[in-house]
Amino acid sequence: MLIAKVVGNVVSTQKHEDYRGHKLLIIRQVGTDGEFCGPEMITVDGADSDAGVGDIVLVIQEGGGARHAARCDHPGPIDLCVIAVVDMINIPHQEFIQ
Amino acid sequence: MLIAKVVGNVVSTQKHEDYRGHKLLIIRQVGTDGEFCGPEMITVDGADSDAGVGDIVLVIQEGGGARHAARCDHPGPIDLCVIAVVDMINIPHQEFIQ
Amino acid sequence: MLIAKVVGNVVSTQKHEDYRGHKLLIIRQVGTDGEFCGPEMITVDGADSDAGVGDIVLVIQEGGGARHAARCDHPGPIDLCVIAVVDMINIPHQEFIQ
Amino acid sequence: MLIAKVVGNVVSTQKHEDYRGHKLLIIRQVGTDGEFCGPEMITVDGADSDAGVGDIVLVIQEGGGARHAARCDHPGPIDLCVIAVVDMINIPHQEFIQ
Amino acid sequence: MLIAKVVGNVVSTQKHEDYRGHKLLIIRQVGTDGEFCGPEMITVDGADSDAGVGDIVLVIQEGGGARHAARCDHPGPIDLCVIAVVDMINIPHQEFIQ
Repeated sequence: MLIAKVVGNVVSTQKHEDYRGHKLLIIRQVGTDGEFCGPEMITVDGADSDAGVGDIVLVIQEGGGARHAARCDHPGPIDLCVIAVVDMINIPHQEFIQ
Repeated sequence: MLIAKVVGNVVSTQKHEDYRGHKLLIIRQVGTDGEFCGPEMITVDGADSDAGVGDIVLVIQEGGGARHAARCDHPGPIDLCVIAVVDMINIPHQEFIQ
Repeated sequence: MLIAKVVGNVVSTQKHEDYRGHKLLIIRQVGTDGEFCGPEMITVDGADSDAGVGDIVLVIQEGGGARHAARCDHPGPIDLCVIAVVDMINIPHQEFIQ
Repeated sequence: MLIAKVVGNVVSTQKHEDYRGHKLLIIRQVGTDGEFCGPEMITVDGADSDAGVGDIVLVIQEGGGARHAARCDHPGPIDLCVIAVVDMINIPHQEFIQ
Repeated sequence: MLIAKVVGNVVSTQKHEDYRGHKLLIIRQVGTDGEFCGPEMITVDGADSDAGVGDIVLVIQEGGGARHAARCDHPGPIDLCVIAVVDMINIPHQEFIQ
């Protein structure tokens, strides 16, 4: 799983039916030094999380697990899903720059 | 899922039967700053989208979900599929350069 | 799927039985500007293609779809397969350097 | 599988039920020269390992295998799992800098 | 599939039961110019290969195919497996530097 920051959201008039009821969030992977890593990705918000812009989130990056976290019971077009909003990252001798 | 720009299309006289009825599009992943990321990839257009050169699209990058979005009901050679043409990307304090 | 150029082939006296009847090709991913991207990879030639050194090919990079294209009906050790030899890549205002 | 070093752990008040009973560890992939590679990732500790901060671990990076190692018998949101704490890495003519 | 060189092996007192009877090899992906690419990875040796330090090997990098090549009939923690020791790589006008 990866750590990411929610940086925005996607607006689409024609929304795939498997995305109904889910926010489409724009995220960027982030290291514990606060540095972004790689380009933006699009994820659905999880069924059990309620992430918004600015949140640090835990993200699953695999089809089967992401669909499960989004409560999608068929092979829908979901390969990323937010699992949880992260409260604290604990790295000895280092402060996480959120 | 990733954000990409459609930059061209592929012409092939011998087309795999699972690609019949789908456009084969050349895309490049794109960040919200408008910068391309990595080399070109080939995707099939989705069953519910109608993407063309110049469009910003949402793309699934996983076999099971891509085949579902292309309405391919067997394990055909599809690992990328366009889900939707993106209308607007909303990132606070930043303007998306299309 | 990715675009690649066939640059060589692999000779192995002990060939895995799932590779019987398939050429083992050395490919490199290539951008539409003709630049190679990343190190060489090994792919099986598809059941419906007949690719050789110098060809530009369309390649599936996912286990299920690659095995299907190679007509391997069990989970054999195939994660890449040539789908088609590409005739033409059409990118407006750009010429593909083969 | 990859070699990684455990550098921290994640604290989350709302923990996904599939993570119950597992530590959520922050790891970084590490080369045998001791250099880190890429940003931090989050893994669950395996059912048969007991990894802690500072340990060098062997990690599976694939959904099916990771869930098996975590003894998760449904497609839960797990794509990385610690398999073992590594005792020794043996590379002729090179000393592993832990 | 990728080309790699075996550079070492892993010693672990607590070995996962799915690794019993398999060597755990440290490999690095290698281009045909002999240059290493990326950090070390850990693979199991295949059921039909007998690879050792210094060998150039063909490696499958996908869960289903790797487990098949390792004759693991359940979703064990295997995402890489050696398929064959490579005898010769044939690239016109280029000599492979082993």
